[in-house]
Amino acid sequence: MPRMYAAESALDHRTADPAPSGAPAAAPAETRTEAATRDLRRVPIHPDHWYPLAWSREVKAGQAHGVQFAGDPIVLVRTATGKIFALEDRCAHRQVPLHAGVVDGESIRCCYHGWTYDCSGRCIDVPYLGKERLPNGVRAYPCEERAGLIFVFPGNPALAGQQPLPEFASVADKHYKTRRFGREVKCHYSFMHENLMDMNHQFLHRRQMGMMRARSLGRRRGADFVEVDYTFSREGGKQPMGEALVFSKEGGEGNKDVMTVRTGYPYQTLKIRSGSGTLVMDLWIAYVPLDAAQRTNRTFGMLSIRRPGIPFALDLAWPLLVWFTERIFKEDRWIVEREQEAHDRQGEDWNHEVFPVIRDLRDLLRECGGRTVIPIQRLETQV
Amino acid sequence: MPRMYAAESALDHRTADPAPSGAPAAAPAETRTEAATRDLRRVPIHPDHWYPLAWSREVKAGQAHGVQFAGDPIVLVRTATGKIFALEDRCAHRQVPLHAGVVDGESIRCCYHGWTYDCSGRCIDVPYLGKERLPNGVRAYPCEERAGLIFVFPGNPALAGQQPLPEFASVADKHYKTRRFGREVKCHYSFMHENLMDMNHQFLHRRQMGMMRARSLGRRRGADFVEVDYTFSREGGKQPMGEALVFSKEGGEGNKDVMTVRTGYPYQTLKIRSGSGTLVMDLWIAYVPLDAAQRTNRTFGMLSIRRPGIPFALDLAWPLLVWFTERIFKEDRWIVEREQEAHDRQGEDWNHEVFPVIRDLRDLLRECGGRTVIPIQRLETQV
Amino acid sequence: MPRMYAAESALDHRTADPAPSGAPAAAPAETRTEAATRDLRRVPIHPDHWYPLAWSREVKAGQAHGVQFAGDPIVLVRTATGKIFALEDRCAHRQVPLHAGVVDGESIRCCYHGWTYDCSGRCIDVPYLGKERLPNGVRAYPCEERAGLIFVFPGNPALAGQQPLPEFASVADKHYKTRRFGREVKCHYSFMHENLMDMNHQFLHRRQMGMMRARSLGRRRGADFVEVDYTFSREGGKQPMGEALVFSKEGGEGNKDVMTVRTGYPYQTLKIRSGSGTLVMDLWIAYVPLDAAQRTNRTFGMLSIRRPGIPFALDLAWPLLVWFTERIFKEDRWIVEREQEAHDRQGEDWNHEVFPVIRDLRDLLRECGGRTVIPIQRLETQV
Repeated sequence: MPRMYAAESALDHRTADPAPSGAPAAAPAETRTEAATRDLRRVPIHPDHWYPLAWSREVKAGQAHGVQFAGDPIVLVRTATGKIFALEDRCAHRQVPLHAGVVDGESIRCCYHGWTYDCSGRCIDVPYLGKERLPNGVRAYPCEERAGLIFVFPGNPALAGQQPLPEFASVADKHYKTRRFGREVKCHYSFMHENLMDMNHQFLHRRQMGMMRARSLGRRRGADFVEVDYTFSREGGKQPMGEALVFSKEGGEGNKDVMTVRTGYPYQTLKIRSGSGTLVMDLWIAYVPLDAAQRTNRTFGMLSIRRPGIPFALDLAWPLLVWFTERIFKEDRWIVEREQEAHDRQGEDWNHEVFPVIRDLRDLLRECGGRTVIPIQRLETQV
Repeated sequence: MPRMYAAESALDHRTADPAPSGAPAAAPAETRTEAATRDLRRVPIHPDHWYPLAWSREVKAGQAHGVQFAGDPIVLVRTATGKIFALEDRCAHRQVPLHAGVVDGESIRCCYHGWTYDCSGRCIDVPYLGKERLPNGVRAYPCEERAGLIFVFPGNPALAGQQPLPEFASVADKHYKTRRFGREVKCHYSFMHENLMDMNHQFLHRRQMGMMRARSLGRRRGADFVEVDYTFSREGGKQPMGEALVFSKEGGEGNKDVMTVRTGYPYQTLKIRSGSGTLVMDLWIAYVPLDAAQRTNRTFGMLSIRRPGIPFALDLAWPLLVWFTERIFKEDRWIVEREQEAHDRQGEDWNHEVFPVIRDLRDLLRECGGRTVIPIQRLETQV
Repeated sequence: MPRMYAAESALDHRTADPAPSGAPAAAPAETRTEAATRDLRRVPIHPDHWYPLAWSREVKAGQAHGVQFAGDPIVLVRTATGKIFALEDRCAHRQVPLHAGVVDGESIRCCYHGWTYDCSGRCIDVPYLGKERLPNGVRAYPCEERAGLIFVFPGNPALAGQQPLPEFASVADKHYKTRRFGREVKCHYSFMHENLMDMNHQFLHRRQMGMMRARSLGRRRGADFVEVDYTFSREGGKQPMGEALVFSKEGGEGNKDVMTVRTGYPYQTLKIRSGSGTLVMDLWIAYVPLDAAQRTNRTFGMLSIRRPGIPFALDLAWPLLVWFTERIFKEDRWIVEREQEAHDRQGEDWNHEVFPVIRDLRDLLRECGGRTVIPIQRLETQV
């Protein structure tokens, strides 16, 4: 896999760059200029993918629901017959949000002067104009519903058919119980990917998990993915109940559970397989930028846990698992928001990564992301 | 009336521009560049007019009151003898607001070091300087009180004498009862003018008014005004009580009430005359920009309703009318703030107007407004 | 003392500039361009001094505490043995704040992936890297503790030894009782210096102090200081209790107390000596910029009052003195924040100073301050 990637330390004159364990002896150096143009935190997410923009339950029959993708307002409309469509969330007339309008049969009527649009975005009625004089309408987006999520394709609609929607095998499988969760996090999506993939950050969760040591078994890289396998050993503390629901009971050094974390652009998965190869935990997660600066993302997660042999055991333990995962998620959210704050203050990416998996991941996110640069606001020095 | 005005659709490549009913067959096209320089939402209000900056009751004898006009702080001072004057709201010394000072006879004394100014803005005392060494003072503004409003002339004071103050005939007439109302609205003043003049927006108030259909009877345009006449017919729902106080009782198709909405720059009026020509409702309204970006305006409204034959009937019904107009005003405020938000996000005026009256109005506001361009803050693209 | 300083009125075309009482007849005029580059409110505080960044009691043993100096995050660490050290408040790895980490012996461990730093900022452990491969660490700052304050030297560390720490003679003297106080104030530090030094601002405190007239006895200026002596006479009102604790009882015209206010860059002191020469009040105060724009400062004040002959009299009166000084401080904070607001709106320094002491002070702050210009955010005019 001969690939070009930055010796990130070249970006940071403050820190030296000893090659980390397992890193290639001499990574080709990226020039300062090139690096600056590809500050990872200013790479926009690539729009030519399917992104979940809402949970199905958020869009009720006969109602409209306003969402955002990277600063673009989008209205999700569910007609009385249950059909879903997605349009630009603005009336072509005075630009007010269509989501404040009235769902009328298979169309949506703007709340202000009553201009009406069908599922293709065509304007089909202006109450005070003749039908032969109707103005053009607004953009429609490809829109699909799957596994309780509403997916929209915000990029070039001609490419929507080529891009597969994610599969959710465990969600549909009755051997698993699935928790849907999510929240807004005030950071660039890349921090989320790096957080989950670098299992050396168990130290952050020491109060929840005790002292766990992750060991990387190896990594794989393709054109649109990076993945890494881990095993874990306990260095101190007791195994918490929440964790016991997921990891095998053998525990300690003998634990043969293998965790695989994968970014398959633009999604992320985390799977835990027992020594015997059974998939015991299956997490799918997407980070959807909300604002134009892509400094806030909405997380959509599906966490499927394999039911143990004993009936209802998992259901009984479920509240504990919810509590445990919420605590972990809260710590992760806190730390990635601090990372974003530091980037905002520093004005560029001072990250000094030493872990090869994360270097690969950063490279992947740069390569698969949009080709433009997110504009940011800067203080001007005026003299 | 051979006038140049933009086929606004030329500004918006997203929507086609079918000529609306009653629109001229071929409006002269404004070039893209010219249009961009005259984005209506960046046209400052023209300062060479009298603007209400406060209600008389807000400025008590012996007190000072700080207000804003388009980012300029102005202090209104009422002396113990009841006289009103208006100055820049800053001390010439350290720039702190004079409105925090002490009214002292016919002058105002800054709260910090006691510098004192008379009604012409001249500095007449610095407690620790000799009288022969007094520094220059601050700017004074022409200031007049009428009908419970304090008017200030923020532009070139030499022109104040040439510009008439508004007349308030109905306010002074005992056959009418007047409601004074107003509030801050977070949008450019032009959205307010367009909102009130386009009666096709009755759809917005469908919950308050039922389904009313406005019909435009014709429009007139002069150098400093646009006006339009409407009749109304009910398409559905029951006439609400609040509305019945204003419109004649005949109702339905037979209703001969005519509403005239007029922007006589920079004010706006809405008058309803019955079939017999009696003025039954007389609204005067002004929208005063508060901040430098002119993204917030304070509305000053005077709503005069003609008393019916039965004594006290209007007084009894007054609370209902207040409630009704507040509900309507709240909906209008909500929608114009959404329009402003859309403009802020889009960064230019995507408005696609099809109604000729509003095209005329937009043209008027551009022509009568200030000649500069309101600066706005933009995200920079830095690469 | 032949010195160049601006006739500040040259900056302000709005106000004339009569020479104030006692001012030199013809001050050399600063050109407009030169003045603009040295807008005092955009002069950064000079970093090559010792600044108090926290009270000792805020940093407990075994804990870390995050502070700011002019936008630079700094972590103060007190080890279990009580030793204090100061580092950049960021992990070299992912830039998250070290103050959220764990104090571990004489070092601090980052909360995220456990990177560990000693008191010199050297990285001494990355749990998942070999010790021979450790990355560089972060910057350490000279740090000293004195009189209950933690001082840091944020500038060139090679100069720390040449710059003396402040002396606190009265604080250590049992004849005095000391109050430590402080708060955040949202203004440039220069407004604080000018406020305290210009005793003509007694008018601001007329409700607390009655009408007091300050009389300047003379001023002195050196390379790094300005100082001025005042006496006071009462023009009206009764002497308040709080004030009586400080000033001698003779009162009125016969009062021989002399107040000396001094800015000895970057600190300020205010001393009151009785007619017999006894130091009755001794205030030391520092204003530490927190944000990069230096629009917020944290004030650290030490107010020492000489104990009167009667034992415990001062202790009994102490709550009254606290209340009195808090009231005064609140008024001062309010007014300097209004000054900053005016500067923000005006975009440059319109100050029109007529008092020679303050002209000297402004000159000193310009000369002793940093050589760069604080960047500020400006609205762009886009056409």
